[in-house]
Formats: sequence, structure tokens, C-alpha cells
Amino acid sequence: VSLEPGRGEYTLGEIADWVGGTVVGSPATPIRAVAGIEEAGPGELTFLANPKYRAWLAKTRAGAVLLAPGIEARDDLAVVRTENPYAALAKVLVLFDPGAPDLPDGVHPQACVASEAEIAADAAIGPGVVVGRGASVGARTRLIGNSTIGESASVGGDCLLYPGVYVGARCRLGDRVIVQPGAIIGADGFGYAPSEGGYRKIPQIGIVIVEDDVEIGANACIDRATVGATRIGRGTKIDNLVQVAHNVAIGPGSALAAQAGVAGSTRLGKGVRLGGQAGLVGHLRVGDGASVGAQAGVIGDVAAGETVSGYPARPHREAMRVEAAMRRLPELVRRLKRLVGATPEDQKGQDES
Amino acid sequence: VSLEPGRGEYTLGEIADWVGGTVVGSPATPIRAVAGIEEAGPGELTFLANPKYRAWLAKTRAGAVLLAPGIEARDDLAVVRTENPYAALAKVLVLFDPGAPDLPDGVHPQACVASEAEIAADAAIGPGVVVGRGASVGARTRLIGNSTIGESASVGGDCLLYPGVYVGARCRLGDRVIVQPGAIIGADGFGYAPSEGGYRKIPQIGIVIVEDDVEIGANACIDRATVGATRIGRGTKIDNLVQVAHNVAIGPGSALAAQAGVAGSTRLGKGVRLGGQAGLVGHLRVGDGASVGAQAGVIGDVAAGETVSGYPARPHREAMRVEAAMRRLPELVRRLKRLVGATPEDQKGQDES
Amino acid sequence: VSLEPGRGEYTLGEIADWVGGTVVGSPATPIRAVAGIEEAGPGELTFLANPKYRAWLAKTRAGAVLLAPGIEARDDLAVVRTENPYAALAKVLVLFDPGAPDLPDGVHPQACVASEAEIAADAAIGPGVVVGRGASVGARTRLIGNSTIGESASVGGDCLLYPGVYVGARCRLGDRVIVQPGAIIGADGFGYAPSEGGYRKIPQIGIVIVEDDVEIGANACIDRATVGATRIGRGTKIDNLVQVAHNVAIGPGSALAAQAGVAGSTRLGKGVRLGGQAGLVGHLRVGDGASVGAQAGVIGDVAAGETVSGYPARPHREAMRVEAAMRRLPELVRRLKRLVGATPEDQKGQDES
Repeated sequence: VSLEPGRGEYTLGEIADWVGGTVVGSPATPIRAVAGIEEAGPGELTFLANPKYRAWLAKTRAGAVLLAPGIEARDDLAVVRTENPYAALAKVLVLFDPGAPDLPDGVHPQACVASEAEIAADAAIGPGVVVGRGASVGARTRLIGNSTIGESASVGGDCLLYPGVYVGARCRLGDRVIVQPGAIIGADGFGYAPSEGGYRKIPQIGIVIVEDDVEIGANACIDRATVGATRIGRGTKIDNLVQVAHNVAIGPGSALAAQAGVAGSTRLGKGVRLGGQAGLVGHLRVGDGASVGAQAGVIGDVAAGETVSGYPARPHREAMRVEAAMRRLPELVRRLKRLVGATPEDQKGQDES
Repeated sequence: VSLEPGRGEYTLGEIADWVGGTVVGSPATPIRAVAGIEEAGPGELTFLANPKYRAWLAKTRAGAVLLAPGIEARDDLAVVRTENPYAALAKVLVLFDPGAPDLPDGVHPQACVASEAEIAADAAIGPGVVVGRGASVGARTRLIGNSTIGESASVGGDCLLYPGVYVGARCRLGDRVIVQPGAIIGADGFGYAPSEGGYRKIPQIGIVIVEDDVEIGANACIDRATVGATRIGRGTKIDNLVQVAHNVAIGPGSALAAQAGVAGSTRLGKGVRLGGQAGLVGHLRVGDGASVGAQAGVIGDVAAGETVSGYPARPHREAMRVEAAMRRLPELVRRLKRLVGATPEDQKGQDES
Repeated sequence: VSLEPGRGEYTLGEIADWVGGTVVGSPATPIRAVAGIEEAGPGELTFLANPKYRAWLAKTRAGAVLLAPGIEARDDLAVVRTENPYAALAKVLVLFDPGAPDLPDGVHPQACVASEAEIAADAAIGPGVVVGRGASVGARTRLIGNSTIGESASVGGDCLLYPGVYVGARCRLGDRVIVQPGAIIGADGFGYAPSEGGYRKIPQIGIVIVEDDVEIGANACIDRATVGATRIGRGTKIDNLVQVAHNVAIGPGSALAAQAGVAGSTRLGKGVRLGGQAGLVGHLRVGDGASVGAQAGVIGDVAAGETVSGYPARPHREAMRVEAAMRRLPELVRRLKRLVGATPEDQKGQDES
């Protein structure tokens, strides 16, 4: 099924066809926007992806809702049934997406592009963008503004770089890469050799390779390798303010949530997920499909498929058991003291606890 | 009482009037600067806001000190008595503040402003600033340099945007908003639907609304909503490197310390405080006046007025009890083992502990 | 020994002389690049600095390896013996370093430099750089592009500022300072006095002083002092996304790993090390040579030479004992309950644990 995005209004029937779902209710229902289940009103399509909001099905004023099979809705609420409402939402939003910032093809007069750079004819280089000698920018790629592409760096085709992005010398971005504002790709890694005169800088002469279909979040940092390459695998998604240190390798299809950090030379497999603010020390291996909880502190290898959490990170089940035991601890300590007597710690006085 | 800022020198009497305090000592004492209690010398005013520095009252070489009632000072030290020395400091510093970067009204020739943008006549648009089609900038607002205001975005009056700021398309900033350098308002939220071909991007078509009197720290990130709006309530203060995810709502008068992170759709009430590096998972409610400790990991709702800390976050008192019990734990475990015998874990060998 | 960097190829003998080591094997072995032990091939020099990769000595295809005394290598593998392979690596990489971005001396026509600024004749000011009134830039310093040097700020000689850097008004950088992209030096500190009308901003009129030989990471933030100065001591190295709050003082030769945060007025001594994501609350003293583990949460002073870790941070040995005890806890709690009976917590039901 094909629909033209940006038309402004669609019927519910058109939308159901577009996402491969089925209408329960009137297919002629007009849909002019998408909104959250709490805010949606008439003419607006909403969705239920998180069961936490299920109670809102009874109250929503939305014109229609994207709903998984097996979840009941009110009789007067039009529904598009679909196996995966979240994936359907992704498709519907394409219809209503105002799209990336508007920028005419070619090099803006306020950009600064080295004469030896290779810019595709239908690429767009916005105002304030600096492109160094020997760099290349592929077909249909948009560099919105105030970004820097270093010497001999390459940006593939169909990429979108928001303002204030840095791509360091010789780094390479594949096709369809999206870089949110302020992200830094290819700053020097944090490498120093202690010596009598203080820390001696180890030149960071490697690069960063960002494969196809990667997205990198706002103000995230991916350091260049000391030697060789820091590598972000195909289809990996990196959230805002994430730190990826030198010589890290991240497998394809991984996802790193905001403010996570990965120290030097650690390798993540395929389809690995890191929760927000999770931290991994250097030189670890994290197996395919492993999952690291938010704020976890990982100090050892993680096996494929394993879920770890806590500080230091343990297999999630064990972490839950430790956590449950900790909650009971004060009461048990009190009872225990009756059995075994006071500890030397207890005799130090009150001010410490 | 009215005093002209920037005069360079004031008498202690003038300053006491300015802050609504009373002088103990000579009102003619000249004050030419403000300094910390450890560094201040003659002609400099200092303050005691944190009791940790109380011992310095006996040693300071300052010309005078802002002091709360009930705290004794040396006889030879001039004092301005005031109920709230920290608030008084805020007032005094206005007198000595060199102010925001100097920038003439109008659009700098090295800026790039779309002809369809609406710029107040007395706004100042600095070099390297890019303003998109349909955007608006209010009266007396200063955009220092190298910032981007996206298409149809609006910035209110009396705002100050430091260099390198990004305000995404259609986002809205109220009046008197201050944005520190490098802050990103309106990057895409981190939303993907897992599908067979990998993560499918969910277009983020919502906006960010920043209400009046908000301040946003350096390199902080506020993501645009998937649909609807991410909202930062009136008078809220956000520190450096904070992450606010899509569809988060933060009530008025809240304060988020550096490197804190709030995951998607979580709602903070009025006057909520987050400590540095605190993290909140998505879809939570945090009640009015609640307080989250530094580095806390919040995985459940927090009631109004509650103080939580630790990982996972618990009511602060309980966290303190658990912490105290943990400190006693090694000793107790040793004693306990004598009572109940060794665990299987103990028999695994030494290398693990 | 003197060698010209950038020659492209060196003999192993030349390299051994250059680093003060001795060759085991043929000094005529040609070296054209440096690579990690897993990736290196013929003509490439590798190194063994981390014992974790020792097994690779048997497998590496490298042309030669930098190796500490006492570690055996295969007979057919050429070796440069050196006391400190990591320091030797730093030296060798200088030979192969393509160097900082190329930028001609002088002010680029697309820069914006106030006429009252003082720029050394052999400094280089790249496109999009803004330099304010009264600012100064020293000899041989390179400002790559799109950075801002505020009014009356000073940048010393032989500095390198990557794109998107902000140096606020009146802040001072010493000589040989390197600032990675997007770092913010001298944004306002997070200071507000609670008042009836909400938070009242405390003007931040102090500065930042960055001493000689400091390096500051990508998107890191160093806030200006409320009054006085935030100070980064000589030779200190700060990694990406680190937060240094107002009035912090960091002694010379310290190292702060990525995403660490130091709250206001805390003072670190000489040679202090902070692990990644470590957090320190305000107004603490951390003694010379102290070390803070990754993700540690420091809420009290740390003595000179001490190593702390965990949350809240404890002396590392104690933290290890607590951690070991926690691991045994679930099993012990189970046994203990048999002795002392169930706690009230146990009777609340299953859904909580």
C-alpha cells in the first residue's frame, strides 16, 4: 500500500492498510494527527504500547487507537488492530512527519568547504559547516549547519547530520547514518603514559568507523582509536550523552541508552542493550544479545544472552535476590545482634550511622 | 533601595540597604569586590552560607561578611546581618556582575537568518547563528553566536542563549530563558520499534516547550516528544550534562543537578529536586516537593514530599538503615557463619572474593 | 636520538633507539604502521601493555612487538625490549601521527575576531571562530573552527582547540592546553538562592583557570566560579563528558575519567584519579594521590593516598569485604530466618521481591 506523506489528513481505513492492520469501527473516520492516549482528541489517532496506560482506554477522547489483538476497547472507540502497535506507530508517524530541516542542495555560501573535498551534487552543506581537504560527502546527505567534517573523513549517502556535529579526520560514516546535534565522532581517546614529568599524551592516530543505519544521539562522544578503529556496528542506536571510548567495538543492532559509558577496548556483540547510565570498564567482552540494566556497573565479561544489573553488575536474578535480602537486612541485623551480641562497630558510637 | 550596578565600588552601608540587612561596624567601609571566605582580602565582601566554613570567620582577611543572625563574628570584622546570606549574596553579585557578552542589537552580518523569520528589532543575533524559516526571536533576546534556531521555533523575550545552542524545529522557549553553551533542545527522542530488519526509527514529531524563567545547563539535552510535547515547567533549573528524554514533563520550580537523567514519559511534579547523576527510569510519577539523592537509581513512583536515595532508590531513612547494616555486614557474616555454618559459596574458593 | 616524524617507514633499529630500547631480532625489519596485537600484520609494530592480551603473543602476525623485560615472546617474533612499553608506544606514535588539522597561520576570513583582540602573528584562527573584545590568543595556538573565545579571555601559546569549544569571558588557559571538541569552559555555575518567587539566580562572576599542559575532553564542562576561580591544575587530564562545578580546585597531575562529576567547591589534591562515572558531592577534600573507583559515590573527605570505591564510597578493601558479604547474603538470610523466624517484611507478600 502506498500513501503520500504530508497530506495532512487520512482516513482510518487508509491508515489501517498502510500499517497492515484491520479497522474495527468506521474506516471513513478522518485522522489529522497522532497524540498520546492522555492528550488525544477527536480526529487524532493514539496508541497503546505500554500496558501501564491501559486504564486510559476507558477515558481517552481519541478518534481512534492502534491496539494489539486481545486487548478490549470501548464499543464507541474506533480501533486499528495490529500485531505490533509500536511498529505500526512508527509507520503512521512517517505520514505526519514534517521531516528534516529544509536545506537546498549544494554548498551554502556561508559554509567553508576545502576545494579538494568531494561533495555529491545533490548533497546539501548548510551555513557554518566546515569540510576539510580530502573529505567526501555522499549523495543526498544533509549537513544542517555549524558542523565540521575533518580532513579525509567520509560521510556516506542519505545521511543526516544535525548542527554542531564533529567528524574527526579520517573517520568514516556509512550510509543512512543520523547524527543528532552536538555529537562528537573522533575526538582523541583518553590515553596517557605516566612518566616522571607527569602524564605523557599517547597520540591517538586511529579512526572511528560508523557503519550503515547507525544513529548517534545529541552530545554523545565516540573516541577515535589509539591505533586501528573504534567501530559502531550496522544499525546500532546510541542515545544522548553516551561515551564510547577508544578501540571499543559495538556489534550490529545494539542499543545504548542515554549517559551509558563504555571504557576502552571493550567489545559488545550483536544486539546488546545497555540501560541508561550503565558503565562498563575497559577490555571486557559482552556477548551477543546480552542486556545490561540501567546504572549497572559492569566489571567482568558478560555471557551471550545474559541480563546483568546492579553494582557491581551480577546476573539479574542474583541481583534481585541480593536486593531483596538487603531490604530485610536491618531487621535481621537487629535480631541477629540479640543472638550473637554487639559488633565492635556498634561500640564506636552513634554519629557514624 | 536602588543602586546602579557596575559602579565598581560601594560602601558597606549601601550594600546593607540594597540587601535589606543591617551593618555591624563602619557603614563607610568600601567594598570593591566579592570573594570566598578563604580568599577574601581588605575591600572585599565575603559570606558564610555553608556552616562547614564557620571556622574561617576567625581567620578571614575580608573587609566585611554577610552573616545570618545568631552567628558570632570577631569584633574587628564588619558584618552585614541578614536573614538569608545566600539570597543577599545573589543580590550583591548583581552589583559586581560584568554581565552577558556584549552584542549590538540587530543581525550580525556573519549570521544566517531566513528572510521569513521574525526577529524583534532590539534582539541581537550574533555571528554564526542560523535562524530557520518561520522562527521568531523576542524583544531584547541575545543569541551570542554559532547557535541554531530551527524552522518555526520560537524564542521569547529577554532570553540569553550562549554559543553552540540548538533549538529544534517548532520548539518553544518562553521569556527570560537562559541557555548555557552547547545545550540541545529538541533533538529526536530515542524511539525505535524492534522489527525483523533491526530497529525501525519512530519519527519524533513532537516538540519541546520550555516555560518562562527556566535555565538550562551546558551540554544538557532535552529531547523532543514522540508526539505532543516534552515540557520544562516555569522557573525550573537544569544543570550541565542532564538528559531529559522524550515526553518527560517537569513541574515548575524544579531543580536537576548535573548529569542527572530522566527517561521517557516520566513526570516530575512541582519543586522536585534531583541530585547529581541521579537516574529515573521511564513512565514514573514523582510527586510535588520530592527529592532524589545524588546517584540514586529510581525505578518506582516517588510520593509527594518524599526523599529517596540509593540504588535502587528507597526512602532516605530506610536507605540509611540498609547502609548502616551493610557496614556491619562483614563482621556479622563472620559471626553468623559460626552459628549456621559455611555456605556453598564459601567452598568455591578464594579467587572470587 | 632524533627521527623525523611523518617519514612513513622506519627500521626497527631506528625505533628501538628512538624509545631507548633494544632490538631482539633483525634491526632492519621495516615498520610502516602501529596496530593492536590482534590486528597487526607484517610491517606493523604492536605492543603488549595489558597482561590480558598476553596469549596473543603466540598468535600475532605483527612484524615486531614492544615488550617489557621478563615476558617471553616467540622466537620468530622481532621484539623491542623496553622498561615501559606504554610510554614507548607514546613515543613511537609521534612518528606516525598525522597531526592536528591543517590550518594556515592568521585569521580565516570566515572567522569573527574583535578588533580589540590580541592574536599572535603565528596563531591560526579557523572559520567560524568568534573572538571577543580584549581576548588574547598566544603564539602557535590553533583554533580549528566554530569555537568561541569570550571577552577578555586568554588562551596561551601552543594550544590546540578543536571545533565547537567555548571559553567564557575572562577565563584563562595556559600554554600547551588541548581542548577536544564541544568542551565548555566557563559556563555559569549552578547557583540559585531559594526565595518566595522561586529560585533566584546567583550571578556567577568568577572565572576558570586552566593551567599549562592540561587536556580537556569532548563535551566536558568546567563551570566558572561564583566568585574567584575554578582551577584545573597543571598537567591534569579530563576525559569526555566530565562535569566540574563552580569553585572546584583540581591539583596538578590529576586524571578524571569519562562522565565523572565533581560538585561545587570540592578540592582534589595532586595526582588524584577519578574512575569513569564517579561522583563527588560538594565541599569535600580529596588528598594527594587518592584514587576513586569507577561509579563510586563519594560523600565524605578522602585521605591522601587512599583508594575508595562503591556507593557510598568506602576504602576499597572494606568495599570489597562488604561486596563479598552481600554476595553471600541471600543464602545466609535464608539460614538465618530458620534461626530467628520470619520478619514482618516477609509477611507482606511476594509482589515486592
